[in-house]
Amino acid sequence: MTNHQVRLAARPAGLPKRSDWQFTEEAVPEPKAGELVVQVQYISLDPAMRGWMNDARSYIRPVAIGEVMRAGAAGKVVKSKHDRFREGDIVTGSFGVQEYALSDGKGVNKVDTRLVQLPTYLGTLGMPGLTAYFGLLDIGKPQAGQTVVVSGAAGAVGSVVGQIAKIKGCRVIGIAGGADKCRLVTGEFGFDAAIDYKHEDVKAALKQHCPDGIDVYFDNVGGEILDAALSRLARGARIVICGAISQYNSTTGMKGPANYMSLLVNRASMTGMVVFDYADRYGEALREMAGWVAAGRLKAKEDVVTGGVAAFPEVLLKLFSGENTGKLVLQV
Amino acid sequence: MTNHQVRLAARPAGLPKRSDWQFTEEAVPEPKAGELVVQVQYISLDPAMRGWMNDARSYIRPVAIGEVMRAGAAGKVVKSKHDRFREGDIVTGSFGVQEYALSDGKGVNKVDTRLVQLPTYLGTLGMPGLTAYFGLLDIGKPQAGQTVVVSGAAGAVGSVVGQIAKIKGCRVIGIAGGADKCRLVTGEFGFDAAIDYKHEDVKAALKQHCPDGIDVYFDNVGGEILDAALSRLARGARIVICGAISQYNSTTGMKGPANYMSLLVNRASMTGMVVFDYADRYGEALREMAGWVAAGRLKAKEDVVTGGVAAFPEVLLKLFSGENTGKLVLQV
Repeated sequence: MTNHQVRLAARPAGLPKRSDWQFTEEAVPEPKAGELVVQVQYISLDPAMRGWMNDARSYIRPVAIGEVMRAGAAGKVVKSKHDRFREGDIVTGSFGVQEYALSDGKGVNKVDTRLVQLPTYLGTLGMPGLTAYFGLLDIGKPQAGQTVVVSGAAGAVGSVVGQIAKIKGCRVIGIAGGADKCRLVTGEFGFDAAIDYKHEDVKAALKQHCPDGIDVYFDNVGGEILDAALSRLARGARIVICGAISQYNSTTGMKGPANYMSLLVNRASMTGMVVFDYADRYGEALREMAGWVAAGRLKAKEDVVTGGVAAFPEVLLKLFSGENTGKLVLQV
Repeated sequence: MTNHQVRLAARPAGLPKRSDWQFTEEAVPEPKAGELVVQVQYISLDPAMRGWMNDARSYIRPVAIGEVMRAGAAGKVVKSKHDRFREGDIVTGSFGVQEYALSDGKGVNKVDTRLVQLPTYLGTLGMPGLTAYFGLLDIGKPQAGQTVVVSGAAGAVGSVVGQIAKIKGCRVIGIAGGADKCRLVTGEFGFDAAIDYKHEDVKAALKQHCPDGIDVYFDNVGGEILDAALSRLARGARIVICGAISQYNSTTGMKGPANYMSLLVNRASMTGMVVFDYADRYGEALREMAGWVAAGRLKAKEDVVTGGVAAFPEVLLKLFSGENTGKLVLQV
């Protein structure tokens, strides 16, 4: 049995190229006492991966050159010498871009695929969903009746942010790229309005849709859209900085938000968040979100792409071209 | 008796020019019932004035073309038909850039010049001091033992921020322009260290002086110094956005903080503040600060410039060239 792997070969400048990756194969490892082996079935593709490829101080260490690319994933336990796991268990964990992962069980969780399909545990009931939950509720602190704006609204995090904000009684405006995504945002996900940043003047559209200003802006994209949101803040607004996908592949440096003095004018705040800080509350959040899913109040959407680990370099780029809708997952 | 006034003649592009001002004179007004007339003795010059000259939505309406320039000031009541004020009272208020001000008494406060000299009520015991107090304590929330960094450290607000942070048991690093200001910051104001941004690499100096990162950064300047501070944040850091003097006269637009994603990496926040929001707590703050002044723990420094209202256009520019040290005040 062979384990095909994708390793980081070089630190990319701009968009990661195929030559930034190395494709290796090795024998499927044997677990020692306290270890298990997972056959990876679905790999999560996340904008954050781009940051992990840079040699920069961040909230997590960079992936080393030659190391299997870090990735959340889901699969089946095929061998176990670990007390908590048995062969056949369906689990999620940080298994990397490979077909088989050896694990000591840390951060590995059993999931119940009778409730939702397995890829959903990489999206709405996984890290993106948890990011949305804690970012919106703990940092954004929306009140019923307030106006919440979300960028990347058709994506894994944004779609959950908006739906939770609706559950909490807010008016919710999503920003997404293209008419199809905008239809999804208002139709499937139930946002009050969507702004198509590819075809609309975002600043003007925010003025129209947010006559009393933005109370919570949940930012996944940075760049000009962040500046447009800053120009429309309500007094005391909270900006949640979750990501800046428009900037991750810039070769000319990050674009800072030129309108940041709106924070002063509006006595507003801009706060960064990393989901890992809430690990001790994942269980509580997942129980609440699973309840919303079961009740049909929180809809999950995954964009599952086939092709196995060999397709990883090209599939990852869909995140940055904006081709995916919902949670991007690679089927192994 | 003639009242000489300085009115806004045009909205400046970049640094305000003399032709952006209009010099008028009129008879000293007579107070009606409920009014008083103040002979202005000292006029406060503040970086915020530059913003008030722009036709932009802000925390206060712009000064209108043809209007007497808005300014905090201190002076003597020379006529009063107001219950609360008598001739001879020494007062502060928003009297504008003119020699005599007619007032209905709103926002006018009697001050005691036996405690400190009158210009101090425009600085350490005035709006700049209150800005420092509430910005640092309410937004920055420094804890004893934490590292506080302040830009514009030799200025009216920054010098008070650093001294209050020292009183609260913090390690305090000031950033200022030039060796003289840096000596003042560590000598007179008692900061632990000063960084001369005109002659030092601020990022490298912050690394040296803040080995455990910055817990509170109080920003008066924006631009590259804000970016340098962002690059050195400690986990959970708070940035107080009080001003951005380096950007106020830019004719190419504001420079946004390119390193703002450090907020995410460090789970940090950046929050704007406007002192007016704390008006109902001014009394409490001033009592505490007056106590520190009396005890010699909080030192006030004013840069009093003579020349009367006619000199206002040139004196204002000292703020932007960095010529003043401490609170810039124009003597009338």
